Amino acid sequence: MRDFLPAEVRRREYVIGVIKEVYERYGFEPLETPAVENIEMLMDKYGEEGNQLIFKILKRGVHETTGEVDLALRYDLTVPLARVFAEYRDKLPKFFKRYQIQPVWRADRPARGRFREFYQCDVDVLGSRSMLVEAEICAAANEVLTKLGFNDFTIRLNHRHALTGVLQSAGIAAEKHDGALVALDKLDKIGREGVEKEFRERGIEAASGDNLLKFFVELSSLEHAAEIAAGERSDQKRKALNAAILGRLVEFVRDNELGARGVDELRSIMKFAEAGGVASRIEIDPSLARGLSYYTGAIMEINVKDLAGSLGGGGRYDNLIGTFLGEYVPACGFSLGLERIIFVMTEREMFPETLVCSPADIMVSIWNDESFLESIALANELRGQKLRVDLYPEADKIGKQFKYASARAIPFVAVIGDDERTRGEVAIKDLRSGEQRSVKREQVGDAIRTALNI
Amino acid sequence: MRDFLPAEVRRREYVIGVIKEVYERYGFEPLETPAVENIEMLMDKYGEEGNQLIFKILKRGVHETTGEVDLALRYDLTVPLARVFAEYRDKLPKFFKRYQIQPVWRADRPARGRFREFYQCDVDVLGSRSMLVEAEICAAANEVLTKLGFNDFTIRLNHRHALTGVLQSAGIAAEKHDGALVALDKLDKIGREGVEKEFRERGIEAASGDNLLKFFVELSSLEHAAEIAAGERSDQKRKALNAAILGRLVEFVRDNELGARGVDELRSIMKFAEAGGVASRIEIDPSLARGLSYYTGAIMEINVKDLAGSLGGGGRYDNLIGTFLGEYVPACGFSLGLERIIFVMTEREMFPETLVCSPADIMVSIWNDESFLESIALANELRGQKLRVDLYPEADKIGKQFKYASARAIPFVAVIGDDERTRGEVAIKDLRSGEQRSVKREQVGDAIRTALNI
Repeated sequence: MRDFLPAEVRRREYVIGVIKEVYERYGFEPLETPAVENIEMLMDKYGEEGNQLIFKILKRGVHETTGEVDLALRYDLTVPLARVFAEYRDKLPKFFKRYQIQPVWRADRPARGRFREFYQCDVDVLGSRSMLVEAEICAAANEVLTKLGFNDFTIRLNHRHALTGVLQSAGIAAEKHDGALVALDKLDKIGREGVEKEFRERGIEAASGDNLLKFFVELSSLEHAAEIAAGERSDQKRKALNAAILGRLVEFVRDNELGARGVDELRSIMKFAEAGGVASRIEIDPSLARGLSYYTGAIMEINVKDLAGSLGGGGRYDNLIGTFLGEYVPACGFSLGLERIIFVMTEREMFPETLVCSPADIMVSIWNDESFLESIALANELRGQKLRVDLYPEADKIGKQFKYASARAIPFVAVIGDDERTRGEVAIKDLRSGEQRSVKREQVGDAIRTALNI
Repeated sequence: MRDFLPAEVRRREYVIGVIKEVYERYGFEPLETPAVENIEMLMDKYGEEGNQLIFKILKRGVHETTGEVDLALRYDLTVPLARVFAEYRDKLPKFFKRYQIQPVWRADRPARGRFREFYQCDVDVLGSRSMLVEAEICAAANEVLTKLGFNDFTIRLNHRHALTGVLQSAGIAAEKHDGALVALDKLDKIGREGVEKEFRERGIEAASGDNLLKFFVELSSLEHAAEIAAGERSDQKRKALNAAILGRLVEFVRDNELGARGVDELRSIMKFAEAGGVASRIEIDPSLARGLSYYTGAIMEINVKDLAGSLGGGGRYDNLIGTFLGEYVPACGFSLGLERIIFVMTEREMFPETLVCSPADIMVSIWNDESFLESIALANELRGQKLRVDLYPEADKIGKQFKYASARAIPFVAVIGDDERTRGEVAIKDLRSGEQRSVKREQVGDAIRTALNI
């Protein structure tokens, strides 16, 4: 877990600010839940591994000696959402569109870019089966990343039913689906022969494995062809490629009912995404799996080339919320990883130069022991004019005060020396250029504002 | 611990936004620390009661069965600040002015307005003994509360040394100081005789108790006289009262060295506060104690009449940071209680009417199954024009959609019926007046912006 010093907090707040602004514009509302949930709420919701990774809190009082636990730190933002929806249902709209940007805690072994305390930025829509929801969520995530300055990401889109349909149509036995997908996922890395070998090791029937592999190898060549033809991928090429992939899917799943339904829904999402102006960002990827347990419909994931993991992911999960409520509540959501976004933005130096990282617009110095009151009054006036003003607290040598301001990247220092005081002026030193000039005291605020263009 | 539904989150964010804006203008920088600290960092820092109230986290893995703990939830923001200052000293400025607005957790019995998870909003200045710091901190807290709309609060100011000086001068034995203050605190409630009785019960020598009580009764009549004379307290009256109180203090502590030093520092703070324009908010209160262990100099507390507790408090603590670092680091800080501020603001209905609590400026409806694409495109256009737009996800009856928007306090609904579509128009229904009118599609954004005055 990390401390965030001021410059880092400002970068985080910048990213969070963009995320909030966009989600608000899409009609999502903010929700906050406590850091701590009852232990029963979290146990067995994230599988056996999840149980291990939950931070558990001792019961207070005499129970501290027994090791009994009753609370745990929030593990994600989805279970709290489900609890809130069940608990406050009568206060919430029929379609509950909420965003939530809060930390979660997992007792994972920390690694590069992975932390035990990290922020999730979730949007979810509860209450509608409409595919418009998927399209809206893709559009919102697209706009967040675009506003942050990303222009090379793709939103990979697949559908749980389409995936199952493909596996069934290839003839893969149900209990081998997970294994087949794990092997397939390595196609780029270990090549066709490597995957064939792994299929054999996982006991997948040769004919079925061949069917499946053939489908994905063909798709892959389709994609490569499109990439080469386009040089850079144009919107039109992307559209044509998505249409071609949907066509192949239809051919391959044929009369597999689940598969056909999945492909239909992908088509609807693409149609809606096009109306929403986000279709050119979306790449239909029939191999995208995103863990198989939780999702019931569309699944999405956002990737950039220079990050092994994803910047975010999500999908439709129509059964989860219902388990808390005892009734059917369709749902679809997306989660952006704040730490990963910041990691890539830092590596790529994507933060705007204008992002204010200095602690103040101007520092008011203290000329000598007699000038405290004068300096305090000036700082007070400038703050009243909306400037961010630091006030040096002691009557140190003026050079020391300049050095201090300079080390903190404060652009200006105000000095009221004896001469200035007599003339009703203030000396302003620009620490970036080293220049110093005197201005009438009542004009200091305007001078700084003009110089900083604020 | 509480969930915050959208309207509540918006109120909290409004208050936090004001606090941040003011603290930034005073040159404070943001710091964030993890929710979790090592258990050794927190144990025995808050007394025996504190030890009980700390939420303790089980060690992971095999240790879960042994009940061993290694982590704990943050209990305040001061200990983490001290840890950060010791850990990153070389990266931090000589005078570290930080603000931190984060939750803390205490396993207290929950009560009205008291919660187990609550936010502290702290400012602290590390590294300077200058009394200018106290004045700056009072000015910043004053500006926060004034901006939030409070106009009836006072910043009570006292000094640990002045307090000790008064007790010593009255002849109270050192080990009876705490008890004497507890009894004195009830003067308003139980009267002079009640306090005398409690002094006797606490074993305070009669002559010393009389001295002390006489001093405070006289001060109290001084204050009442000033209040009655002023009708409402004017700045001049407040200033005169503070001067009179300082005068009495000087007389009472006479040659008590500690007391005289405390009064001197109070004088300096008042002088600086006057230059900073905050003196009229400050009321020197020689009875203010704020727990005796932690503070080493000035102490402050902000109160309003309709809240039993305080809205915030703080003071100088020159020895605490040093214990983490093995060297002397002077420090002074102030903590605002977010929950209490919100509690009073809610009771008094102080939140601005313009505080946006509706989830969107306009909702785009879905006329029928054929109009999804048209509605998605319109929502997309309006969002591009910076409006906050909700999009109804299904082709329900239009009356149902109006009802939905109305229940969520969304002021406008856009409808693209068959007629409107033919004419390239959009019908806009104002749900507040019930009026409906058609405008050219490309003018919808401007029309809404004008109507909402945004």
